[in-house]
Amino acid sequence: MTLFDLIAFDADDTLWHNERLYNQTQTGLADLLARYGVSKKSVDEHLLQVESRNIRVFGYGIKSFTLSMIQTAVELTEGRISGQDVLAILDLAKTQLDAPVELLEHVTETVSRLAPRHRLMVITKGELQDQENKMARSGLGEFFRDIEVVSDKTRESSLRSDILPILELGGYAVYVPYQMTWLHEAAEAPASGTPRFYQLEHLSQLPGLLGQLEAQG
Amino acid sequence: MTLFDLIAFDADDTLWHNERLYNQTQTGLADLLARYGVSKKSVDEHLLQVESRNIRVFGYGIKSFTLSMIQTAVELTEGRISGQDVLAILDLAKTQLDAPVELLEHVTETVSRLAPRHRLMVITKGELQDQENKMARSGLGEFFRDIEVVSDKTRESSLRSDILPILELGGYAVYVPYQMTWLHEAAEAPASGTPRFYQLEHLSQLPGLLGQLEAQG
Repeated sequence: MTLFDLIAFDADDTLWHNERLYNQTQTGLADLLARYGVSKKSVDEHLLQVESRNIRVFGYGIKSFTLSMIQTAVELTEGRISGQDVLAILDLAKTQLDAPVELLEHVTETVSRLAPRHRLMVITKGELQDQENKMARSGLGEFFRDIEVVSDKTRESSLRSDILPILELGGYAVYVPYQMTWLHEAAEAPASGTPRFYQLEHLSQLPGLLGQLEAQG
Repeated sequence: MTLFDLIAFDADDTLWHNERLYNQTQTGLADLLARYGVSKKSVDEHLLQVESRNIRVFGYGIKSFTLSMIQTAVELTEGRISGQDVLAILDLAKTQLDAPVELLEHVTETVSRLAPRHRLMVITKGELQDQENKMARSGLGEFFRDIEVVSDKTRESSLRSDILPILELGGYAVYVPYQMTWLHEAAEAPASGTPRFYQLEHLSQLPGLLGQLEAQG
C-alpha cells in the first residue's frame, strides 16, 4: 500500500537533456548563416518570432523547429541561401534526432528506487514516436509502463501545463527546475506553501519526499 | 447493455479525407518544380524515396512530409531552387494544415446514431495536436470522448496496424476501404471468414452490422 500508486514524470529536461540539444542546433544554424553576414543575435531573434508565428499551425517539436529554421534562413538571407545549405539545415535536425539521450543527474538511481513500489509513467508534450525512441535509447524503458503525449495548444508554460492541472485535480506536484528554460515557457512557480506543491533542487530528493508524505498520510 | 461498450475509429480517411490533401500538396510541389524543368514523374518517384529514407528519423505526418518535399526540391533542382520557392513549399504545408476538414460520406449520420449507445473514440497515428485540431474543426467533437495517438515505428501498413492487433486482442475489426491508399501502406485485407473481421463498403452499414452482432451475441 502506498499513497502514490502512480508517479508521472515529465520527460524532456526532467529525465533527459533536451533544451541544450535545441541550443546546439540553433548554434549550428547561426554558424551557417554567419557565412551570409547574418549575426547570431539576428538569428536568435528572428527564429523566435518565426516559431511564435508558426506554432499555431506547426505545433511543437524538432520538425516544427526545423521548418522555422528553414524559413528563418531564407528570410534573413533574403533568399540568397543555397540549396546545399538548406540540406545542411535538414542535417542539423537529423543529427539532433539521432543524438544520444543524455540522462540528467540522479535519474537512474531515483527511478530504479521508485519503480518497485510505484507504477511509473511519462506524460509529455511533443511527439509520441520521438519520445518512444528516446525512452528506448535512454535505458530507462524497463522502469516505465506507459508514455502519454498530451497536447498544448495554448502556448501555456511548462509550469502551467505540468503543475497547475495536477494540483487542480487533487494530485501532488513536484517541480525540479532545469538549468535552461525555453523562452516560450518561462513562468513563475506556484508560491511555496501552495497545498500539495513541492519544489526540489535534485531529483534524488524525490524518494525521501515521498517517504515523508506517506508517513504523514 | 451492449456488446460494444467502446467503438474506436481510425480518423484519417475513415472520418475525414486526408490522402487527397497530400496529393494536392504534392501536385503543388510538382507545379513548382516544373518551372525548373523537373517532371511530375521525377517528383513523385524521388519524393517517395526521400520519404522512405526519412521516415525512421522524421516519422509520419505533414511536417515530416514537408521536410522531405524540401529535400526533394533541392536535390531534383541540384541546388538551383530559389529561397522564395522554399518558402512557397512551406506555404503549401501551411495551406494543407489549415485546409477545411471534409468528412467522408455517411460519417455524420453514422456517428450520431452510434454515439448515444456506445462510447466513441479515435485511435490514430499522426500527431495529437494536428488530430485534435481536425476533430475540433470537423464538427464531430461532441460525439467523441477521446483521441489516442499510437505510434507506428515499423512502417507496417494501415491494415496491419489498425486491424490485426485488434483481432489479436479479441476485439472486432471493421474495415471500410478508402479510395486512395498511400503507397507505404498498401497491404492485403485479412481473408473473408477471419473471425471477428468484417469489411463494409460504406460506413453507414456499421450500425446495421453492430445490431446483427448484438442480436447474435
